[in-house]
Amino acid sequence: MKPMIKSPLQIARASYQPKLPTALKGNVVLKEGAATESVADQADIKTLFPNTYGMPLISFEAGVKKEYPAVAAGVILSGGQAPGGHNVICGLFDGLKALNPNNKLYGFLAGPSGLVDHNYIELTKEIVDEYRNTGGFDIIGSGRTKLEEEWQYDKGTEICKKLGINAIVIIGGDDSNTNACVLAEYYSQKKTGIQVIGCPKTIDGDLKNEMIETSFGFDTACKVYSELIGNIQRDANSAKKYWHFIRLMGRSASHITLECALQSQPNICIVSEEVEAKNQTLNDVVDDIIKVIVHRAEHGLNFGTILIPEGLIEFIPAVKKLISELNDLLAHNEDFNALNTDEEKRQYVKGMLSPVSAEVYRSLPKGIAKQLTLDRDPHGNVQVSLIETEKLLIEMVAKRLAQLKAEGSYKGKFSALNHFFGYEGRCAIPSNFDADYTYSLGYTASVLISEGKTGYMSSVRNLTAPAAEWIAGGVPITMMMNMEKRHGKMKPVIQKALVQLDGAPFQYFAKHRESWGDEKSSYIYPGPIQYYGPTEVCDQPTRTLLLEQEK
Amino acid sequence: MKPMIKSPLQIARASYQPKLPTALKGNVVLKEGAATESVADQADIKTLFPNTYGMPLISFEAGVKKEYPAVAAGVILSGGQAPGGHNVICGLFDGLKALNPNNKLYGFLAGPSGLVDHNYIELTKEIVDEYRNTGGFDIIGSGRTKLEEEWQYDKGTEICKKLGINAIVIIGGDDSNTNACVLAEYYSQKKTGIQVIGCPKTIDGDLKNEMIETSFGFDTACKVYSELIGNIQRDANSAKKYWHFIRLMGRSASHITLECALQSQPNICIVSEEVEAKNQTLNDVVDDIIKVIVHRAEHGLNFGTILIPEGLIEFIPAVKKLISELNDLLAHNEDFNALNTDEEKRQYVKGMLSPVSAEVYRSLPKGIAKQLTLDRDPHGNVQVSLIETEKLLIEMVAKRLAQLKAEGSYKGKFSALNHFFGYEGRCAIPSNFDADYTYSLGYTASVLISEGKTGYMSSVRNLTAPAAEWIAGGVPITMMMNMEKRHGKMKPVIQKALVQLDGAPFQYFAKHRESWGDEKSSYIYPGPIQYYGPTEVCDQPTRTLLLEQEK
Repeated sequence: MKPMIKSPLQIARASYQPKLPTALKGNVVLKEGAATESVADQADIKTLFPNTYGMPLISFEAGVKKEYPAVAAGVILSGGQAPGGHNVICGLFDGLKALNPNNKLYGFLAGPSGLVDHNYIELTKEIVDEYRNTGGFDIIGSGRTKLEEEWQYDKGTEICKKLGINAIVIIGGDDSNTNACVLAEYYSQKKTGIQVIGCPKTIDGDLKNEMIETSFGFDTACKVYSELIGNIQRDANSAKKYWHFIRLMGRSASHITLECALQSQPNICIVSEEVEAKNQTLNDVVDDIIKVIVHRAEHGLNFGTILIPEGLIEFIPAVKKLISELNDLLAHNEDFNALNTDEEKRQYVKGMLSPVSAEVYRSLPKGIAKQLTLDRDPHGNVQVSLIETEKLLIEMVAKRLAQLKAEGSYKGKFSALNHFFGYEGRCAIPSNFDADYTYSLGYTASVLISEGKTGYMSSVRNLTAPAAEWIAGGVPITMMMNMEKRHGKMKPVIQKALVQLDGAPFQYFAKHRESWGDEKSSYIYPGPIQYYGPTEVCDQPTRTLLLEQEK
Repeated sequence: MKPMIKSPLQIARASYQPKLPTALKGNVVLKEGAATESVADQADIKTLFPNTYGMPLISFEAGVKKEYPAVAAGVILSGGQAPGGHNVICGLFDGLKALNPNNKLYGFLAGPSGLVDHNYIELTKEIVDEYRNTGGFDIIGSGRTKLEEEWQYDKGTEICKKLGINAIVIIGGDDSNTNACVLAEYYSQKKTGIQVIGCPKTIDGDLKNEMIETSFGFDTACKVYSELIGNIQRDANSAKKYWHFIRLMGRSASHITLECALQSQPNICIVSEEVEAKNQTLNDVVDDIIKVIVHRAEHGLNFGTILIPEGLIEFIPAVKKLISELNDLLAHNEDFNALNTDEEKRQYVKGMLSPVSAEVYRSLPKGIAKQLTLDRDPHGNVQVSLIETEKLLIEMVAKRLAQLKAEGSYKGKFSALNHFFGYEGRCAIPSNFDADYTYSLGYTASVLISEGKTGYMSSVRNLTAPAAEWIAGGVPITMMMNMEKRHGKMKPVIQKALVQLDGAPFQYFAKHRESWGDEKSSYIYPGPIQYYGPTEVCDQPTRTLLLEQEK
């Protein structure tokens, strides 16, 4: 047998032609709306961004043929992978070449550091063609270097001047786009002539607002996780013997978990934002889980599924306080470090914590408590991301159920399995939705560049309509900003979008969750992403987006 | 928004009509081959199965219309879930109804215990239609009760007589089919008139032989795991900072791991059967891994993927011996149980083990050693399935790399992430291959029943050809049997198919693995199972099957 180089789907998928909004298919004319304001702190933001504040919204419409001077652009992938990143670059490349065949595109390597360290390649048709409709960020690599210092910006100017680059496109999340905005302002102030355009990327779905309906990658990642959750639910419903505790990526917001719940209808789904709003303790969360488990056990059903957002414990006010006290208490604490046994350390910590935090500490399973005190990062901080919240909850639930059993108020059997899904979805082959959306975002960026715009985020809206009806344009990044405290200082940043408890997706969930948790299972089995076949199977946006845009 | 009851794919997939071999599409004539022999221990097997030994192979061909008397069948799902189980039942139902509209099908509930406890439902068109082409075993549930005692068989006779059931179809793995064969023999001896037909099920792929080319579910499960492995590889190749240690289901054989490696081409793949054949120690396995990690680090690549079969440590002769010694040593050992601290227990165990096993015990990370001595099942046995082998290997690899770094022979960075995939694939929506194969297996069973056969396994062969050319028929289960020691007694059992080191799949792997592990990545990204679209994307059998049948 001949060695395989690519899978059949990789080969077939290479020839997919992403759908574009009608306005981008031919000649484009740019329409400017009214001047904009930032979402909050207008005076501060205006002062900080004198050159890029208040610019109008931009939309594109079909127009007459227009000649654009040749430009060169450089593109950067910033932060965690999200399905569709390659198609942003493909759309950008195709758009630039369509607007002027002499346009050039460079890729800075391994994230923002490529701009600073002058690591780059020219992106040719041969290279770009290899990556059409594929997952991953491997075309130029990504990285987490933050562009925050003037010397970095100046190193960027240097390489742009050398290569004749007129514009930089930064594909990233809220932080990277905040930095893109600062960079745009700096380059305007310094009159470098270098434009900066942002693109909204993150599987977490927390970069969105009135003009950015969703970040790319959220659709595909949630569909991959939902496929797996559905499969596990079918297994639970067949084997009838396990409770599956499934933790899902997404530390700062619960959009992924909520969307997966809307797609698969598990018995229980925890939303961090609700836990925080209700000021719940970890025991409260456990009690909520217990209620459903006990109810189902009364009907002979000792199995089910529970979705848990990765960031949960940081949203529990009491645990947050405990972690903060531990960080203050144990960083460079020689007395503590001198103690010999785990038990001595445990007692020492208990004695030093505030009474409330000591109580929370006592309530934690020993393994977790130990992890909080012993596994610390180089700065002495608790490594929250290492805590396997799903195992923590299994342990606490099992303990509580054992008590209830002893008291006679629970007669079921409890066996649990744990799962964590994250890396399985960040580099999946983008869904048709994400393939089309990202290609359109990249194409839109090429027009913004050719029109000489800077400080804008590429925006494609009306996303629950067919792609032909999508509205492409640009949104001033300053419009999304407010002032927030970061590392003790007030900074201009893009507002992070958490799950809104009064928003349609959460409201739909809140209305139906009781029935999902009862003895009649409401499991849905989404199955794997389909790229071919009926449009209702292949081209659906997320439930979150459908609910948010429902008339 | 209206509540969702089913996903778009569930709705679309319901109307898929599985492909059948041409011979089964119209009237069928049964062809008998020569008499058969068991694979080994012919005299013993013949003595134990006087009524069902030596029966001929059966194949079906297109024939003339034949009238069959009405029959009733009962179907049982036995053991772990595998994609396609529902379609076996659908094929069986459709076949029975096509052969005689008065035929009936009952389903025994929750596995073999349904037969014994007289729990059953009649399977009607309305019920069956709800489950066409779906994953899971929830139509009638499954269970792990073993049919091994005569009183169980007699309880079965009782309910079959009551319902007028002429035949029982047992859908299960090697053990369940062994029991099906014993049951067939018993019913023949007792002249109950109840036939027994088996169906080859298991995602593990270890029920196969000359006449059974593959067990159903293996195709779909491996494709789901390979999708995830591919996604993780794309992530590894983009982020360039993690080694992903991925453990895959399959305790008794490494077919799943090997097939996933053939589909995704990871940097490293461990095959338990090879480890055993080479008499490797755990340190040898670690050294093999280290070689690849160090080589890639020398080229600046501090990332990669490693596939690990779930059953690995039970295949390592030295660990197997250690576990066996621990089981003998610690079961009901009051001296040990009276010890107070973990350290005392550790020392006690070390003192009692053979020198060789004590050395292995010392070489294990403390957490694992503790798990081996403390986490024991109710019979006092080590719970091997709880051991997270991927974490064990990460710990041992990290330790070894730290030594090499201190010695100056390794300069890389090692960060690892762990994954375990099993429950994610057992109930996936069956691939076209599994949907067609299982439907054909069920349909074949209906003909075997109507032809009055017993002690046969439903067999569909020539599986790498288009479904129309598949060869349907029956194989005497005694043909697959030999004598093996089980719980100290010689028993007739179906030979379990392990990975053959001289077989084509392993040989292909062995030939290419070095290049997969080197600095040029050979990753393949299979993507999710597709049900629509080009046939080369949607209808491919496994690489294992393609290699095994390559001319």
